[in-house]
Amino acid sequence: MNQKIYVNGKIVPRQEALVDIEDRGFQFADGVYEVIAVYQGKPFKLREHLERLVFSAAELEISCPGIAELQEEVEGYLTSIGLGAEDASIYIQLTRGVCPRTHAYPDGLDSILIMKAGSLKSRPEEYYQSGVKIITRPDERWSRCYIKSIALLPNVMAKKAAERARAYEAVMHRDGFVTEGSSSNLFLVEEGSLITPPATNYILNGITRQTVIQDIAPELGLEIREQSISLDRLFRAEEVFLTGTTTEIMPVVRIDENEVGRGLVGEITGRISETYRGLTRA
Amino acid sequence: MNQKIYVNGKIVPRQEALVDIEDRGFQFADGVYEVIAVYQGKPFKLREHLERLVFSAAELEISCPGIAELQEEVEGYLTSIGLGAEDASIYIQLTRGVCPRTHAYPDGLDSILIMKAGSLKSRPEEYYQSGVKIITRPDERWSRCYIKSIALLPNVMAKKAAERARAYEAVMHRDGFVTEGSSSNLFLVEEGSLITPPATNYILNGITRQTVIQDIAPELGLEIREQSISLDRLFRAEEVFLTGTTTEIMPVVRIDENEVGRGLVGEITGRISETYRGLTRA
Repeated sequence: MNQKIYVNGKIVPRQEALVDIEDRGFQFADGVYEVIAVYQGKPFKLREHLERLVFSAAELEISCPGIAELQEEVEGYLTSIGLGAEDASIYIQLTRGVCPRTHAYPDGLDSILIMKAGSLKSRPEEYYQSGVKIITRPDERWSRCYIKSIALLPNVMAKKAAERARAYEAVMHRDGFVTEGSSSNLFLVEEGSLITPPATNYILNGITRQTVIQDIAPELGLEIREQSISLDRLFRAEEVFLTGTTTEIMPVVRIDENEVGRGLVGEITGRISETYRGLTRA
Repeated sequence: MNQKIYVNGKIVPRQEALVDIEDRGFQFADGVYEVIAVYQGKPFKLREHLERLVFSAAELEISCPGIAELQEEVEGYLTSIGLGAEDASIYIQLTRGVCPRTHAYPDGLDSILIMKAGSLKSRPEEYYQSGVKIITRPDERWSRCYIKSIALLPNVMAKKAAERARAYEAVMHRDGFVTEGSSSNLFLVEEGSLITPPATNYILNGITRQTVIQDIAPELGLEIREQSISLDRLFRAEEVFLTGTTTEIMPVVRIDENEVGRGLVGEITGRISETYRGLTRA
């Protein structure tokens, strides 16, 4: 895979992938994005990701091409960079456009679409086999986390805190209840059922989260409940796992200084993880 | 004034003022900024602005030149664009740097400094003479508003809502208490005293706010109290005004559908505004 970048309809060499300093994405975090996993050359859940991009843009009144046009652009880009039957990831970013700096955006700006393919940053296999540690942390984000915006500074600081604690992820809580990880959703297992926080304005409704709820849980005959999860409840869970496009199904065996269950990857988590691999590596 | 831009130590023509698509400012809102007013060729409160830039950067662990070096760069830039004894504004943005996209930033990145001079966007004189309308709105921002970060999407949406309501500004409230405007601080007058919300983590401690508290109120013999302001209290205020680098001292005569006092610019507000003009146009 070469390093060609899609910038607003043109495919350019990496070093020419530049944006104006008055792109509102650069000055105001005024944009939205998606990360899509490509397995053996096929973007996974492409339509769902593009639908969410369109939704996020609409919430912010950012002009956005329709799903069909976006799909064509993505596929055209993948062809033009010569992606074969490889695994990859695609980063798509849509910003409101370029204009002299002022908070209130002018109506009718032409948005800027960028795509960059890269390797699929698969996590070490050991993480999936042995599970990972997470930390908990107050949720510092804004109140419209259901929009996949590029205003990611709080997520950046949370993930860095996790890294410093040698943890895989920081799971955030607001008013005593778990929201999600800095780039993942959280599930727990309680008496054999799956529990995950409801998709309120405080969480980003992940495509992998939806895949677990809509595809995997029914297939495995698992009951699933969207319920508020207090920190106490999280610490008492039998099993815990994270979901995300590049995280996939990540078993959690330690939260802060506490073991989850017996500190081993849970049986139900393992089945969900296996099923997800089946879906993505079909 | 020409349109030359400072990009990381170089002065470049406007059309060459570009940043990499993997600048973390563009992908993660991972940066901080300042806006400085220049009156008759002299940046007002330059040192205070640069100190705050250094503070914001330090809070986020973004590498940042020292005050003396920043001051030299600003002055060098103003000279190089041939700014004489004119009014102007300077926008300064510092982002963490460029690296392959990943939430947790690598340590030791080289930050990117950008400066752009423009005209001082003075508000119409009529606004100061007759006062403006503001709207109130829930504060949707993150919990670290004391950092002047470029994660401004909530501010953008608030300012746009104000514009749609034909108002000058949206003043936000959290848990029933006023925080600040989308790009300004708020003061009210109560029995002849000035009241403004304390500089907690939920507000950006504006330089103009500090100028009112530290320079102007003492000079005019006005008592000043930093206190929580409930929405009720705001609506009962005798006078209300906003402060900000380009807003200066802006009288508010209408909040949502309610008049402030008798709907005229307050007497104390007028004196503060005049004093501020004296300071800036010395």
